[in-house]
Amino acid sequence: MLLEKLNWRYATKKMNPDKKVSEDKLNAILEAARLAPTSSGLQPFEIIVVNDPDTRAKIREAAWDQAQVTEGSHLLVFAAWDNYTADRINAMFDLVNEERGGTNEGWEAYRQKLLAGYVPRDAEENYQHAARQAYIGLGIALTAAAFEEVDATPMEGFDPAKVDEILGLKERGLRSVTLMPIGQRDSEGDWLVNLKKVRRAKEDFVSVV
Amino acid sequence: MLLEKLNWRYATKKMNPDKKVSEDKLNAILEAARLAPTSSGLQPFEIIVVNDPDTRAKIREAAWDQAQVTEGSHLLVFAAWDNYTADRINAMFDLVNEERGGTNEGWEAYRQKLLAGYVPRDAEENYQHAARQAYIGLGIALTAAAFEEVDATPMEGFDPAKVDEILGLKERGLRSVTLMPIGQRDSEGDWLVNLKKVRRAKEDFVSVV
Repeated sequence: MLLEKLNWRYATKKMNPDKKVSEDKLNAILEAARLAPTSSGLQPFEIIVVNDPDTRAKIREAAWDQAQVTEGSHLLVFAAWDNYTADRINAMFDLVNEERGGTNEGWEAYRQKLLAGYVPRDAEENYQHAARQAYIGLGIALTAAAFEEVDATPMEGFDPAKVDEILGLKERGLRSVTLMPIGQRDSEGDWLVNLKKVRRAKEDFVSVV
Repeated sequence: MLLEKLNWRYATKKMNPDKKVSEDKLNAILEAARLAPTSSGLQPFEIIVVNDPDTRAKIREAAWDQAQVTEGSHLLVFAAWDNYTADRINAMFDLVNEERGGTNEGWEAYRQKLLAGYVPRDAEENYQHAARQAYIGLGIALTAAAFEEVDATPMEGFDPAKVDEILGLKERGLRSVTLMPIGQRDSEGDWLVNLKKVRRAKEDFVSVV
């Protein structure tokens, strides 16, 4: 059951560096993120899977020396578009037409509406909107990891400008948003694994009108 | 399998107003969102379940007349904290101490670090950070809905200031972030249900370093 898996997961503090996540499970997590719904279907983010040990060591330095960055099996970096451009919007609308074999007036009117609304807008405002969509992907990827019983640690604690530089993201029009090391918990060495998961009570989280 | 469910889901355009989502399934979706990991565990968002027909009609007006708002079984509104305050941060740290039966120096130092970093910061910057966390919850709630074979439509197309006013969110220190009607698709009346789901190819979404 999904809720059992979500209770099983936690922000793993200590990964076992000897345990590799299988390609099948990695691919299931990436595919779940790829299927994430995003605003107008633009998918304004990408995932970079960092395997290279030197690159991971550099990212760890830029992430308050958090050990999971290098000790996890794989490091996923969620990076959002730095801006909505006409090229990017048109590419997605064209892809939809190609995949669905044709277009229609309503769809083309919607394209023009997005082009008119997004392209002139401030790049920072567009990036913030894109970053939110990346967080939908993060939520789904974390759920998929839990479903596969793969441990994961969502991380905002890093210097995005440094990570962007290490990965050459600026040149690709991307900005790093979150890190997500995945792997297998080292239960012996993890101070958090046996502590109770704490959330606000349902009545303090949900209200009904 | 989770990926099958994620392929099954789509942004439902036409809900069947006669089909009620069971309380069990609704609770599973809300519980999944409650379990969402958030930055420093602060859970800076809430969900408002809007059942009252008049309130839903008003929200529909503020949401470009999108029919799912009133025709779905339930309307979930994700609302983020308008700011990080000392009271809110302390309440969460105190709850953790209460639930775990004690505290420790590292945890209390972390509390002070967050208080020093977040409280003096601009309210808008804090809200933007909180809103991102709500999107993790949205991603998890959408996955949980799919897992339960409950249809859902994530929506950004609404006037947040109007929805805040309709729901009295300002007085509660909240700002509406996304709407999520849930229900059951009306396959006869939905123009999108039979169209192919389009996502960028894996090689355009994932890169490996």
